[in-house]
Amino acid sequence: MNARIATAAPPKAAPQTLNLTGALAERNAAWHFLALPGDARELARQCLLDWIAVALAGAHEPLACMLAEEAREQGGHPQSTVVGQGFATSCRQAALVNGAASHALDDDDVNMCFTGHPSAVLVPPLLALAEARGESGAAFMTAFVAGYETLCRIGAAVSPGHHVSGFHATGTIGTFGAAAACARLLRLDPDDTAVALGIAATEATGLKSMFGTMYKPLHAGRAGADGMMAAHLAARGFAGRGDALEAAQGFAATYGPDFDPAAALREPARGLHLRDNLFKYHAACYGTHAAIEAARHLRQRHGLADSDVRRIVVHASALSEGVCNIAEPCTGLEAKFSLRHAVAMALAGIDTASMSSFTDEVTNDRDLRRLRERVHVELHRECQEMSRAEVVIETTDGVLLRRHHDVGLPVTDLAEQRLRLEQKFRSMAGSRLTAEACDELIDLVDRLEDLPDLSPLAGLLGAAGAPRRIH
Amino acid sequence: MNARIATAAPPKAAPQTLNLTGALAERNAAWHFLALPGDARELARQCLLDWIAVALAGAHEPLACMLAEEAREQGGHPQSTVVGQGFATSCRQAALVNGAASHALDDDDVNMCFTGHPSAVLVPPLLALAEARGESGAAFMTAFVAGYETLCRIGAAVSPGHHVSGFHATGTIGTFGAAAACARLLRLDPDDTAVALGIAATEATGLKSMFGTMYKPLHAGRAGADGMMAAHLAARGFAGRGDALEAAQGFAATYGPDFDPAAALREPARGLHLRDNLFKYHAACYGTHAAIEAARHLRQRHGLADSDVRRIVVHASALSEGVCNIAEPCTGLEAKFSLRHAVAMALAGIDTASMSSFTDEVTNDRDLRRLRERVHVELHRECQEMSRAEVVIETTDGVLLRRHHDVGLPVTDLAEQRLRLEQKFRSMAGSRLTAEACDELIDLVDRLEDLPDLSPLAGLLGAAGAPRRIH
Repeated sequence: MNARIATAAPPKAAPQTLNLTGALAERNAAWHFLALPGDARELARQCLLDWIAVALAGAHEPLACMLAEEAREQGGHPQSTVVGQGFATSCRQAALVNGAASHALDDDDVNMCFTGHPSAVLVPPLLALAEARGESGAAFMTAFVAGYETLCRIGAAVSPGHHVSGFHATGTIGTFGAAAACARLLRLDPDDTAVALGIAATEATGLKSMFGTMYKPLHAGRAGADGMMAAHLAARGFAGRGDALEAAQGFAATYGPDFDPAAALREPARGLHLRDNLFKYHAACYGTHAAIEAARHLRQRHGLADSDVRRIVVHASALSEGVCNIAEPCTGLEAKFSLRHAVAMALAGIDTASMSSFTDEVTNDRDLRRLRERVHVELHRECQEMSRAEVVIETTDGVLLRRHHDVGLPVTDLAEQRLRLEQKFRSMAGSRLTAEACDELIDLVDRLEDLPDLSPLAGLLGAAGAPRRIH
Repeated sequence: MNARIATAAPPKAAPQTLNLTGALAERNAAWHFLALPGDARELARQCLLDWIAVALAGAHEPLACMLAEEAREQGGHPQSTVVGQGFATSCRQAALVNGAASHALDDDDVNMCFTGHPSAVLVPPLLALAEARGESGAAFMTAFVAGYETLCRIGAAVSPGHHVSGFHATGTIGTFGAAAACARLLRLDPDDTAVALGIAATEATGLKSMFGTMYKPLHAGRAGADGMMAAHLAARGFAGRGDALEAAQGFAATYGPDFDPAAALREPARGLHLRDNLFKYHAACYGTHAAIEAARHLRQRHGLADSDVRRIVVHASALSEGVCNIAEPCTGLEAKFSLRHAVAMALAGIDTASMSSFTDEVTNDRDLRRLRERVHVELHRECQEMSRAEVVIETTDGVLLRRHHDVGLPVTDLAEQRLRLEQKFRSMAGSRLTAEACDELIDLVDRLEDLPDLSPLAGLLGAAGAPRRIH
């Protein structure tokens, strides 16, 4: 009864390629909680904590509200919580809305291996599915790590050409990651996992030209929701090809100029791609982060006060021009795109993690503007990376203090990272949750692997209120 | 508060291209019922009638049942009918399931301008949305024509490179068509329509390498559902770029090697792309259709009986080899891929439109096999089109009868086409509906432009039962 193969036989796999999809599916299905290294568990907790912070902060952005309203109008069984919106909906719609919300402010984590945002595509479908099915924290964690690694391996196989051609890898490769994570949570065997990856291959979508619009966060939401559907359909026995990555006219061939299956199978330098996860700590343009970090370090290290500083020079990439080099910002929004202002904030000890620091009022604070006048930005053509900057401070004593920072390098001190993430969490979640609720969420994430189900966590996320905006 | 533009400014449109997305959006919004030519209305009715036939026939295919079950599990307000499944769900899920069902058997209509299936992506979201909103038949018809033309214009701008690169245009370009159609039904102005097309651009998905799997029909379903969501979000004020087709790293640049904006703005040869719509009449491989048509014509024209035929030669494209040239089919499925057998069926007067003709029993019928032994297939390398075939019959009187047919040419006699579609409709819908219900549906489609809403039509489609399968 199979007239659907009426018009053409499926193209054969190119003979020279191995069964990459199958090999990745097998690895994905093989992850088990007891085999997760301790630092991987800690990193999974940190990713979840950071995701909660950015999701709470983004949950009331206009795009997230529109998607939530759309979900309400479509309806659905109340399976999974919509963060900060006080309702539950079908797990697929919850994944869509929460994914978009968590990428709305663009301050969620990154992995450069696929040039994209991993937690924004992995956590929303896993959280929604775990809540809907009553899965444990340990199952969530295992699926997260499985999805993370599969995501990055597929990203590695098509980078950098895929991204350079115009695709937004968070949307495209993210769909595979979400499918892999959900497949693991559903305990799919390798064959069904390969089918899920195949569905992801033919669902993958997202254009880089949408950066700067509401579509960009939507890519993350779609990747999560579509990846979940891919896993669901595979679990139902949806028949399809298990070689969609490497097939002739498959994903790799169609979505980019270079395909290196070996890159997907190569072990990452530090054993796990998860170990290269990068967090963002500042509610400003990514191009300001390295300079903020350098200035922050010098201030702390040398106990600098405003009055100790005579002159500050920021050396940064010429790519910052036209992106984050507004010399005299007048509004909070402009301040986010001002190296000068951001460095002045860091030196003044203002919390750059908090969106409430980027208001018109703070931006026009007299003392801060005076400090800013002492900041000089020098851009360098030879520096091609916006992740790097150097800050040189001349003190009133005539001492030169110098610090280089690269926010593109993952940290090795997980305990320190954890402290910073908690700080970011309290700063971002604080306007939505009481201090007690913040403590409770931090504690729940801490005990993630012991939670028999995620309903207490979901309960707190659903009840989080609208932000108290300061304008 | 727009930190979402933190990492990059949107690429500028390439300076040499005009605002194609805006121009198409303007045309799309300008369609009005009273301006629809009479034949366009008739063609819209024929497309709907044909779509109902194929959707009813496909509604119980395993993939459609899996998608329906998935929709039941996700839940949703009962806004729109799921064909043949006896329930209603959210309009987006209904569009998904019905779209996949209507493309499940691959016997839905085609337009070669974008190498894809128009009605399978246009009718499901329009039907679901019209039902959910209580829109009239005239509004449906207007939106259908608007979406059809916008779909084909965008397809023309990126053909053939887009399809050749590996994308399944039904899924990709179809998403634009569905967005355009829904945008017209929602009466979006040109600016919002351009945003809807922009969302469609970054949602467009579907790999040709999925042909021959359950994913292929899913592409049609997704295109419809995603296009509907694009229109919904645009209606909500989702902010985004209105030049997504022609932008640097926009859809056209990212999804294919050749982009010809002029082709999208050129008037089609016959004034409307809809006039080039092609219907499929046989439940067998498309490569057999021209030969079936030629044989059918000779039989009718010359009143041939089995005993009048000494020898039949079928001249067809060499592309048929490995696709539809099984010499001695034993099963119903094999018969669908056998030029010899399909021509024998046509000469024997068997209804090749009906799936119930392609059973093991019919295939092994003694008289039919005897007739088949007189059929000889000659494949020709110089013929590169599977849409063409010639059948030469030598009668027992020694007369040579010859007929060439090209199923790639649209018919000009709409009344004749209507009769054939009604025949196909009764043949395909007959196993799901009573003869009275068939009559009623045909009558409703006939009166489409006078229907104040589509609930009577939806009611009949929802109640259609499972097929009485003959195995």
